[in-house]
Amino acid sequence: MPGEGPVRTGVTAVWPCQGNLHQEKLPAAVHVLNGFTKCAGLVQIQELGSLETPILITNTLNVGKCSDALIEYLYFKRGWDFSSINCVVTECNDSFLNDAVGRHVEKEHVFEALDRAHGGEIEEGNVGAGTGMSCYELKGGIGTASRRLQLGGNKYSLGVLVCTNMGEVSGLRVDGIHVGTSLREAVPLETCRQNPENGSIVILIATDIPLSVSQLQRVARRSIHGLARTGTNSDSTSGDLAIAWTDAWRINMNKAETVTTIPRLQDGELNIVFTAVADCTEESILNALWQAESMVGRDGNSRMKIPLKKVQEILSECNYQFRMGSDT
Amino acid sequence: MPGEGPVRTGVTAVWPCQGNLHQEKLPAAVHVLNGFTKCAGLVQIQELGSLETPILITNTLNVGKCSDALIEYLYFKRGWDFSSINCVVTECNDSFLNDAVGRHVEKEHVFEALDRAHGGEIEEGNVGAGTGMSCYELKGGIGTASRRLQLGGNKYSLGVLVCTNMGEVSGLRVDGIHVGTSLREAVPLETCRQNPENGSIVILIATDIPLSVSQLQRVARRSIHGLARTGTNSDSTSGDLAIAWTDAWRINMNKAETVTTIPRLQDGELNIVFTAVADCTEESILNALWQAESMVGRDGNSRMKIPLKKVQEILSECNYQFRMGSDT
Amino acid sequence: MPGEGPVRTGVTAVWPCQGNLHQEKLPAAVHVLNGFTKCAGLVQIQELGSLETPILITNTLNVGKCSDALIEYLYFKRGWDFSSINCVVTECNDSFLNDAVGRHVEKEHVFEALDRAHGGEIEEGNVGAGTGMSCYELKGGIGTASRRLQLGGNKYSLGVLVCTNMGEVSGLRVDGIHVGTSLREAVPLETCRQNPENGSIVILIATDIPLSVSQLQRVARRSIHGLARTGTNSDSTSGDLAIAWTDAWRINMNKAETVTTIPRLQDGELNIVFTAVADCTEESILNALWQAESMVGRDGNSRMKIPLKKVQEILSECNYQFRMGSDT
Amino acid sequence: MPGEGPVRTGVTAVWPCQGNLHQEKLPAAVHVLNGFTKCAGLVQIQELGSLETPILITNTLNVGKCSDALIEYLYFKRGWDFSSINCVVTECNDSFLNDAVGRHVEKEHVFEALDRAHGGEIEEGNVGAGTGMSCYELKGGIGTASRRLQLGGNKYSLGVLVCTNMGEVSGLRVDGIHVGTSLREAVPLETCRQNPENGSIVILIATDIPLSVSQLQRVARRSIHGLARTGTNSDSTSGDLAIAWTDAWRINMNKAETVTTIPRLQDGELNIVFTAVADCTEESILNALWQAESMVGRDGNSRMKIPLKKVQEILSECNYQFRMGSDT
Repeated sequence: MPGEGPVRTGVTAVWPCQGNLHQEKLPAAVHVLNGFTKCAGLVQIQELGSLETPILITNTLNVGKCSDALIEYLYFKRGWDFSSINCVVTECNDSFLNDAVGRHVEKEHVFEALDRAHGGEIEEGNVGAGTGMSCYELKGGIGTASRRLQLGGNKYSLGVLVCTNMGEVSGLRVDGIHVGTSLREAVPLETCRQNPENGSIVILIATDIPLSVSQLQRVARRSIHGLARTGTNSDSTSGDLAIAWTDAWRINMNKAETVTTIPRLQDGELNIVFTAVADCTEESILNALWQAESMVGRDGNSRMKIPLKKVQEILSECNYQFRMGSDT
Repeated sequence: MPGEGPVRTGVTAVWPCQGNLHQEKLPAAVHVLNGFTKCAGLVQIQELGSLETPILITNTLNVGKCSDALIEYLYFKRGWDFSSINCVVTECNDSFLNDAVGRHVEKEHVFEALDRAHGGEIEEGNVGAGTGMSCYELKGGIGTASRRLQLGGNKYSLGVLVCTNMGEVSGLRVDGIHVGTSLREAVPLETCRQNPENGSIVILIATDIPLSVSQLQRVARRSIHGLARTGTNSDSTSGDLAIAWTDAWRINMNKAETVTTIPRLQDGELNIVFTAVADCTEESILNALWQAESMVGRDGNSRMKIPLKKVQEILSECNYQFRMGSDT
Repeated sequence: MPGEGPVRTGVTAVWPCQGNLHQEKLPAAVHVLNGFTKCAGLVQIQELGSLETPILITNTLNVGKCSDALIEYLYFKRGWDFSSINCVVTECNDSFLNDAVGRHVEKEHVFEALDRAHGGEIEEGNVGAGTGMSCYELKGGIGTASRRLQLGGNKYSLGVLVCTNMGEVSGLRVDGIHVGTSLREAVPLETCRQNPENGSIVILIATDIPLSVSQLQRVARRSIHGLARTGTNSDSTSGDLAIAWTDAWRINMNKAETVTTIPRLQDGELNIVFTAVADCTEESILNALWQAESMVGRDGNSRMKIPLKKVQEILSECNYQFRMGSDT
Repeated sequence: MPGEGPVRTGVTAVWPCQGNLHQEKLPAAVHVLNGFTKCAGLVQIQELGSLETPILITNTLNVGKCSDALIEYLYFKRGWDFSSINCVVTECNDSFLNDAVGRHVEKEHVFEALDRAHGGEIEEGNVGAGTGMSCYELKGGIGTASRRLQLGGNKYSLGVLVCTNMGEVSGLRVDGIHVGTSLREAVPLETCRQNPENGSIVILIATDIPLSVSQLQRVARRSIHGLARTGTNSDSTSGDLAIAWTDAWRINMNKAETVTTIPRLQDGELNIVFTAVADCTEESILNALWQAESMVGRDGNSRMKIPLKKVQEILSECNYQFRMGSDT
């Protein structure tokens, strides 16, 4: 999204895997912690336990346009054939910095995001849907974190990507330490003027661990533990939700067999996965803060970058060794 | 929607009440019986128990466009002010008769439907979103029914509007009688070719009975009893859901008071309401069948009007007095 | 349960399979249609998707005693070793005929029911938990039905067992025909005096079809379609719920492997299973009515056997061929 | 519970208010975060949104006995008249210290707990159901905390009572500070031997704020934020759940009116309530740790009291001012 102006928005595309997802769906689950959200596609995931499109993240009032663009892209540019498809489009509300009602995300932005989404390093901070988003009344946006897990001799990965827009600066906790009270004084009041409907966080959880749909549902719920530890209580007008999927198996629509066999992790191993989800969610949120840059948006509204030096001071006063960021 | 051709679709708008719903929300609830659905706005109703926009019904692949048009209409044509709004757009899949991928519902159709929706007689059958919809492999569409209820000396109303698209002709029951087996023979096979993803029914329930949000949730669930009695088991790819609301009280965002008082029906009176919902749902589905007319759609696909004479014959062989349609 | 007197109750035990269920759990799911129920064990099934004890059915106020007796039986008489176990005890309210507050089900009755439950013909009507139960204000109790299904060349079974206690006679439908209105006149008013909290139906669904936990959840929900077709709208004080399980695979707590493989039916085959569940539920309820016998209970309260001759007359007036009871 | 021996269990009774709850029910809601639980009565609260008995807390295998004793107490000792009652009995698993299979809670203990529960100071630590419970592998039990809230000029209270039994010592966070790593070294390994099914926390939330049933549901969910901040991720075999109620209004079964009016907090005020619930839950858990005393139980198993001095040292190294415990 261009320029110095009121347009402070964008779109982020996440391809859960290569290939025609509509034909070979991924097992998936949703946890809605606080459903103040206009996200598209959640109800069908809840019913069928499957994901059949890439996931878009954008701002609240662009969900309809992005959903329509996703249909066009998949049908005409990718050649997928369908008369019904469950587009998953998630959102946070960037209207504090952005001219939201303008709905400035166009079809071309969606196509470009979808074309570019495959592979490579994931950018964090003020990118894509994160462009105009906040985090604890500071500048936020996209953040990610991942873990490598060993379960029964096999190696697996679990990664989280968040688009942040929730919280009040006074509540912020960094690895448990209440930095918010001190930061509150360091942050100009006018950058904190919070639109009461400005909340929300989208949490995407991808893994290759062989989880069943009902296990994925339980895993998705643990993202809340990580979220809570950063200092929000999920405000009434905050759309806080998580979508989790695995590519360890597929729901193949073309298989000739009536019965397929699928791998399933023993329930006794789930706690390690729960911990990874909670930790990655906490760390992703902090990474969004760390990587975002100050921004001036519409009507002179602005969000400050988190004053990292100040945070370091508080943490070192605590003789505190920051533990985030190391893969376990 | 115009002409003899592949375009067999439309949009239906329902205004739950006059005035700025976003400022004075209606208490509402959702029941998802089978969530094979791309409907927008359900998750927020589930969380907050409130409805803040008119409801659109359209076809599956138009949900995004209709959602975007609804934002534009409410903000620019009605002058509602918001940076976040939960558009409720429901859908069935009319792709058996309609060129669905064309997404032929345009902004203007949405605006027109919204302008015309207030008051007057409700048309049934092949109208609006019902244009290209089916019902038990026959031509279906929009249907309605209502009841007047007396509860503790006061009079109330409850009305149901459905957009049908579910079922197989062999399963059809009219007021309990298995007419489907006989109809199956009377209906040309080629008009029954069922797209496996052709299911779905949208059930809207409006009342002025003073119900709480959690009571509305329980009321919405009883629509399934009426649906089941018409002979479907809610196929795996059928999006079967109900939205219920009352205008007996409002969730007023502008009230100065911290605490408001709201009316609440005693739970002991709920059974009468449950019966009304089940009966109205059953009757609405039959009315959609009765009022729809045969239609030829894309690629020569066609749906027949239900052979009413044949149905009458079957019922009279049963010495059967049809009971639907009388207000109780 | 003995004698001519106020004690009109009992307990029914269902062993979902042989062996130590606590070590080799069965995948299972619950659907609560109307949660006016004191059943034990549902929440853990909803979380874990597993069944680890036999299921008891009894009357409302005996749930605690039965639950405790089940622990004692499994630990001391079967030698299962545990410090935590999720006893599943379901209930209906037989207090119209039975001295419910007396809680007359004793440990010995539970032990006996559990010892005798393996194998053999299933009795229907006034047996076990069905002893004092009603059905549409007539005498009801235990009923069963089953279907053999062919899916992709393989043969499977699905069986339903119900314990009925819901409904009003005026609503009763037999295979769709409204027999209730006529029966209402044939049934002495005093036998219909309905305790407003007298509702409920327990629906148990057993199969060997390879379903996942989330598929079982969807299957369980279709029992409501069968229930609805018999003429109830699930009263506000009726505890209407279904538990479904499969023995096609196990959740084995002792397996050395971290990941197991499990069979999973393709979603495209589910509709056949849905139909079987709905049909078996409808038929089970009618079988409970057919097999139950008139009973006089506490304080002169009585329930009449359904007047089968009268029902036959109504059906034959309809030139109606009764379709229940044939395996498909 | 008496003596030096294997019996390390008990029962705690909570009366949500005076009077016949069965006739004048309290609005209530449940949030199940992780349903590895044998609690009785949750499903009916979920359906009806009402609480009609006092709440018992006990150990896992005593739920049936306590449920039965509660029926007897209410019917015969209190003279409540019913044929159906939804007993709410919650549980954690004290089998690490206690002879759980012995089911040592007798009717008399339940009666005594129910008689003594009205009014007065609430004891914390090793009392009642808390007797044999743990907390982060240290000795835990009962803990409480409360807040006074001002909403729109009116004063309200909100209190939380927990029965703890979850967590691993290495995860423990005190007001955010990771004390667990250091404590892990200070706590003898043998006292930490965790039974894999030893988890669970029961969280009871009482208030006089005028909340609707659906608002209570949202409020109950925020207890998880407080729980998460103490350092657990809700293990797979931990039964983590919250029950919330208000006495600001009643569901009166005897009222002549068909429609009653009830007070309802504006949604805009909910965030303050959410914060109070999260903070009280966190503080209650720490209070359970602070107040519990070391205990030797069955087979030499023991749990240590949290080494408070060590915790103080860690916190003061952080120049850290402990913030819990002050009403806001």
